[in-house]
Amino acid sequence: ANSIFAAIPTTIFEEMSGLARAHGAVNLGQGFPDSNGPQPLREKAADAVLHGSGQYPPMPGLPELRAAVAAHYGRAQGLDLNPQGEITITSGATEALAAAFFALIEPGDEVVVFQPVYDAYLPLIRRAGGIPRLVRLSPPHWRLTRAMLEEAFTPRTRFVVLNNPINPAAVVVPDEDLALLAEFCVVHDAIAVCDEVWEQVVFDGLAHRPLMAFPGMRDRCVKVGSAGKIFGLTGWKVGWMCAAPPLTQALSRAHQYLTFTTPPNLQAAVAWGLENLGGWLAQMPHDLQRSRDRLSEGLRREGFAVLPCQGTYFLNIDLPASGVDEADRPFALRAVAQAGVAAIPVSALFEADPVTTILRLCFPKADQTLDAGVERLARAR
Amino acid sequence: ANSIFAAIPTTIFEEMSGLARAHGAVNLGQGFPDSNGPQPLREKAADAVLHGSGQYPPMPGLPELRAAVAAHYGRAQGLDLNPQGEITITSGATEALAAAFFALIEPGDEVVVFQPVYDAYLPLIRRAGGIPRLVRLSPPHWRLTRAMLEEAFTPRTRFVVLNNPINPAAVVVPDEDLALLAEFCVVHDAIAVCDEVWEQVVFDGLAHRPLMAFPGMRDRCVKVGSAGKIFGLTGWKVGWMCAAPPLTQALSRAHQYLTFTTPPNLQAAVAWGLENLGGWLAQMPHDLQRSRDRLSEGLRREGFAVLPCQGTYFLNIDLPASGVDEADRPFALRAVAQAGVAAIPVSALFEADPVTTILRLCFPKADQTLDAGVERLARAR
Ligand SMILES: CSCCC(=O)C(=O)O
Ligand SMILES: CSCCC(=O)C(=O)O
Repeated sequence: ANSIFAAIPTTIFEEMSGLARAHGAVNLGQGFPDSNGPQPLREKAADAVLHGSGQYPPMPGLPELRAAVAAHYGRAQGLDLNPQGEITITSGATEALAAAFFALIEPGDEVVVFQPVYDAYLPLIRRAGGIPRLVRLSPPHWRLTRAMLEEAFTPRTRFVVLNNPINPAAVVVPDEDLALLAEFCVVHDAIAVCDEVWEQVVFDGLAHRPLMAFPGMRDRCVKVGSAGKIFGLTGWKVGWMCAAPPLTQALSRAHQYLTFTTPPNLQAAVAWGLENLGGWLAQMPHDLQRSRDRLSEGLRREGFAVLPCQGTYFLNIDLPASGVDEADRPFALRAVAQAGVAAIPVSALFEADPVTTILRLCFPKADQTLDAGVERLARAR
Repeated sequence: ANSIFAAIPTTIFEEMSGLARAHGAVNLGQGFPDSNGPQPLREKAADAVLHGSGQYPPMPGLPELRAAVAAHYGRAQGLDLNPQGEITITSGATEALAAAFFALIEPGDEVVVFQPVYDAYLPLIRRAGGIPRLVRLSPPHWRLTRAMLEEAFTPRTRFVVLNNPINPAAVVVPDEDLALLAEFCVVHDAIAVCDEVWEQVVFDGLAHRPLMAFPGMRDRCVKVGSAGKIFGLTGWKVGWMCAAPPLTQALSRAHQYLTFTTPPNLQAAVAWGLENLGGWLAQMPHDLQRSRDRLSEGLRREGFAVLPCQGTYFLNIDLPASGVDEADRPFALRAVAQAGVAAIPVSALFEADPVTTILRLCFPKADQTLDAGVERLARAR
């Protein structure tokens, strides 16, 4: 077996979901809603499955979906993307990340990566031949600083990967930090892989700003998005990469050999949804925010210390401030086995020097599930 | 951009489909049927889209699909596979191949590959760090010989990749050749990546024998299969890898970072189909064989020399024996632009020392499409 992949355990998400199934636990671990996306979207997809083509769509994706993605980002983020040559549809954002790393990284390239780090990044970067340079962000605000970037960027830096909004930190990276990162990218002639899958899941009237919109960044970003996250259908596995034509050209070479295409029926439905479900998209963050607040208030009532949450599906607890003496991983393992509630220990998303004091809870769930989660967590303490 | 992927053109399939669209041509190039799979399967999928979960299925795939794949191979090929730990569902066979190469190859490993070669193999093998050792097969019978294998296998050989039935050769590899290859794998302690996506598309009462069934091969094969090919729905992108537990363990490490999962609604429908559409599966090769024969007879009537076709969607023409003096690629480019018929020049599937005399035609099409294809090809000559 390949030595890079062989050294990796099952993802923490799969591990905790497996434990949740085994213990019949309330699953607030892996990030997915317990609802099932907009009903009209599912109806469109069912219709496309029945009556549309089930054969290969064009390798870069259905033209109508590429057009819909471009139009959506035009409306939502003021971007001006060309559906011909700047958008590639992928089998989920995971494939988009894999395609970006395999298409762009040349062995020995350095890649600046922020911790906590989504678990796919480091194995993919290393398997593609890249050398990760880790920048450690710290709770509760997870801010970037000039000093951090000066330490991380070197003459061999070719890429930076930024997840914004940040999973698991649940913060929206402030404009000041984005501008700082953009400055470093421009000075070092680095490409930014922008994992913006949570862009639509932003609360309290905050707005997502794509890194691509910052000075000098338009043509040096690979913007990764996800219909699964936008529409709350994480299993659909329809994602995309947006990038200037020369980057898109390179990305397509990897995409064509990683999956080649993505089911045309689901693509057609997502295209329709982006064009026609504006009302649903506008309402979604409000509904999620209500769930966030219910979980947050329940936890506070039980004496848990809750960190700020501006976006994503996740709310974090500060364990020591909540009166928990254990580190996050042993506490999470005890919570799932003994109290029947699964959560993600944030330390699992660090490679070095982990923050071990934070537990991540996924809140797009029915009220009674959230209430049961609170009760069980209180019991685990 | 990465230097291995950057050097690669768009796949010949996408190129010819693009030209077919541009010229409004009859498309007998890229391999897909113009029918749309079994209606009850599409109904099941539509039902699952509407009423089933749209969230992440387990990373190795839905348990019922893994069980259905194991049962199907038990019935069809006498294999005894454990759905727990020996089967991984992927986003099409392309992802399965990518996962196998990235999961298993260690830089410097030699990989024996047969030409003509499906276009994804060499870029993936090289990007994974492997060193391909090419074995050239020749028309019309495309047989393996001991001398070829003796030349290709070295002390550094760790893998062999075999597509059987062979695309584009359209032959079923005879047992004698499979036994020979198995002998070399065992002696060299090599793993076989068995791309058996065409296993169900075999004609004239011939039977597909999985390489896994040969002595010593049970635990040294990664058997790749495709629901898209089995059910004639190439866009569904549901595939799988079957392998002994230690290999499956390694494969899952790559799969979890390439796509993580595959849409659960399509998975559920495929599981149902494998269990309930035995009649459709038995009939499918007969229907395709009728199309093959119609195309073959039409071509012969027009004076084309047709090569034997035992399996796959493809029928090959020997150009010189058909009175065509041009090489396959210029002839194919002229045929699509001037006569309005797209086909695949088989030379595009060689990296070195190409056979340039063969044109591949895809025949799972309506009778009038096949007839139009014949007429147009005759006009191109
Ligand atoms: C692909 S499983 C992980 C889902 C997710 O985004 C998360 O839980 O963080
Ligand atoms: C993934 S496009 C190629 C389809 C195919 O198997 C072929 O045409 O050979």
